[in-house]
Amino acid sequence: MTKNASTRPIPTRFPEERILMGPGPSPVPQRVLSALAAPTLGHLDPQYLAIMDETCAMLRQVFQTANALTFPVSGTGMAGMECVATNLVERGDEVLVCINGVFGTRMKDVFERCGAVVHVLEATWGEGFTNEQVAAALAIHPHSKVVGIVHAETSTGWHQPLEGLAEIVHGHGALLAVDAVTSLGGHELRVDEWGIDAIYSGTQKCLSCPPGLSPVSFGARALARMDQRKSKPQSWYLDVSMLRKYYTGGGGGGRVYHHTAPINMTYALREALAIVLEEGLAARIARHTAMHQRLRQGLEELGLTYIPSRSLHSLNCIRIPDGVDDAAIRTALLRDYGIEIGAGLGVMAGKAWRIGLMGHGATIRNVDLVLTALRKLLHK
Amino acid sequence: MTKNASTRPIPTRFPEERILMGPGPSPVPQRVLSALAAPTLGHLDPQYLAIMDETCAMLRQVFQTANALTFPVSGTGMAGMECVATNLVERGDEVLVCINGVFGTRMKDVFERCGAVVHVLEATWGEGFTNEQVAAALAIHPHSKVVGIVHAETSTGWHQPLEGLAEIVHGHGALLAVDAVTSLGGHELRVDEWGIDAIYSGTQKCLSCPPGLSPVSFGARALARMDQRKSKPQSWYLDVSMLRKYYTGGGGGGRVYHHTAPINMTYALREALAIVLEEGLAARIARHTAMHQRLRQGLEELGLTYIPSRSLHSLNCIRIPDGVDDAAIRTALLRDYGIEIGAGLGVMAGKAWRIGLMGHGATIRNVDLVLTALRKLLHK
Repeated sequence: MTKNASTRPIPTRFPEERILMGPGPSPVPQRVLSALAAPTLGHLDPQYLAIMDETCAMLRQVFQTANALTFPVSGTGMAGMECVATNLVERGDEVLVCINGVFGTRMKDVFERCGAVVHVLEATWGEGFTNEQVAAALAIHPHSKVVGIVHAETSTGWHQPLEGLAEIVHGHGALLAVDAVTSLGGHELRVDEWGIDAIYSGTQKCLSCPPGLSPVSFGARALARMDQRKSKPQSWYLDVSMLRKYYTGGGGGGRVYHHTAPINMTYALREALAIVLEEGLAARIARHTAMHQRLRQGLEELGLTYIPSRSLHSLNCIRIPDGVDDAAIRTALLRDYGIEIGAGLGVMAGKAWRIGLMGHGATIRNVDLVLTALRKLLHK
Repeated sequence: MTKNASTRPIPTRFPEERILMGPGPSPVPQRVLSALAAPTLGHLDPQYLAIMDETCAMLRQVFQTANALTFPVSGTGMAGMECVATNLVERGDEVLVCINGVFGTRMKDVFERCGAVVHVLEATWGEGFTNEQVAAALAIHPHSKVVGIVHAETSTGWHQPLEGLAEIVHGHGALLAVDAVTSLGGHELRVDEWGIDAIYSGTQKCLSCPPGLSPVSFGARALARMDQRKSKPQSWYLDVSMLRKYYTGGGGGGRVYHHTAPINMTYALREALAIVLEEGLAARIARHTAMHQRLRQGLEELGLTYIPSRSLHSLNCIRIPDGVDDAAIRTALLRDYGIEIGAGLGVMAGKAWRIGLMGHGATIRNVDLVLTALRKLLHK
């Protein structure tokens, strides 16, 4: 190709590598980055469809579900939230959302924008919900068609138990929708056994894939609800009745083009899921537990305390000690060590640090390095 | 990391390379694939923000606009269409959509899902619209707040002239929204000079970047319209009032986190745009013109005819000759030559082939190879 002689070359930027220990993205293995850079295929190429089918099959294993309708939405985690909301409710439907942080707050907003009437069950940020509290809220709002709850509240580090919740929700004729952005692949998450009807996650957390896709899964109850809709979902891009034809060939008529899927991101997700399954889901979850315990012990030895009373293993949300300059410490971590940790989000801004131990980043070397760095920077 | 001894390795899949000459994705230069695989950064890392700022600045050059609000939406081209629709209209607003193919048809659907009352100006597939026709339709529907039109109708290959249209649209107090998915970077497209108020594109066409982002740009009139909204846009994920704070720091309050941007895709887009600007936009557009002419001459020598009376250079939509087996030819092209061309879409299914000459794929070697292959397969 002839170049315009008058234009100057624009050099490639090579970012300096970071150790990603914030709320995501997490560190991406070279194997995944290499897969990401494989030659781009067409979105209807048989080779690509085979890779996509494998990706969906592996997602089912990681979600621990037999749901046929399990695929990556072509957007980041918030697109997954919006996909669940836009497909499950019609204008005027009542929804109960459990709010104990930024992502529950967002879920309310997203459902409301879909035209839902949203009832709220609130808990203090850093705390969560008992099944009894949800049951009581449903008794007050018995016409709720969906209950939305966050499994891993990334803004506070709260780890929400979900066992037994679906029975209560289903007993009221509602569907259980779960935000698992920061738990999938790092925490126990049994979609079928726990009776979850709709769930979304992100690729850039415990799966250690770059951001850009949002794995979702819908069960039979959710599918039945969608099949009974009187109106189209308000989002064309996220309309599952069309997406399922492309991703699964389901819904009649065989495989039909919908949009141009993010081809190379699918390669990366396939590879990230292969790594998860090669490690073994149970072993991976145990590793997240062990690394959390190692970090927690070290932080507590430094006098640092956790904000949530039941902490995620993948995200450790700690109080910034009195008199410590939040930004100065995070800047020094980044500048001197190349370590990124997360600032507080929402009402936690300036009060919390969030240390992620996700996927490829949940290692002894990362835990011990961040503890060493914090010890020096806090002059302990 | 300890691997579970019981799990078997899952081998990486290395896709066989294709010569992508369909309706997109187009061939991606190795320089872009290498940038895609650079180490993942955090979405608030100063290094990443610098890359994002550069990407937006280069997008402005390619869109030929000074619009501050120019950025890549975190989804594929259809997410860009939905972003424009969801931000520009409120429920009950009237919209005029010009339909002459699949993407105009989709635009109507997308605006309707946003609650708009959509009036339609139709043309035969393969033909387009005169400014006078749009003016006449606006005279019939004078309360239209937006006019939507497709610059490059990927389903028929029609190339829609846009010069002078904005004056008519603005004269009726409406905004001009343009689909430029298949034209940006390959066809003349002067956003500011032509008075376009809102525009969206895709990365996987004439920019030769993998699919996954949708560059958009909004002008002052569109911004004023958004600022006057009484209701929130129905999509949280695509709400420009929040996206602009993240991408441009505009709208007050400085840069604010919205969602986790697709980091590595941004690297790739930056690199793809650098290649466009190094070649020079004018030289690149001239190359697309020359390659289209070369292909057209060769196709006509084979007795093949174009469907649209005014063809895109980036996408060549031709009639399948009587008695020729559509699928057999496309299968042989893929199997024997590794060449992907596009099937007909919508009412064109079985009647048309779509040969893309986009970005990195618009080369003499590709043109001459596809002509040679078609000559042999059609026994000419």
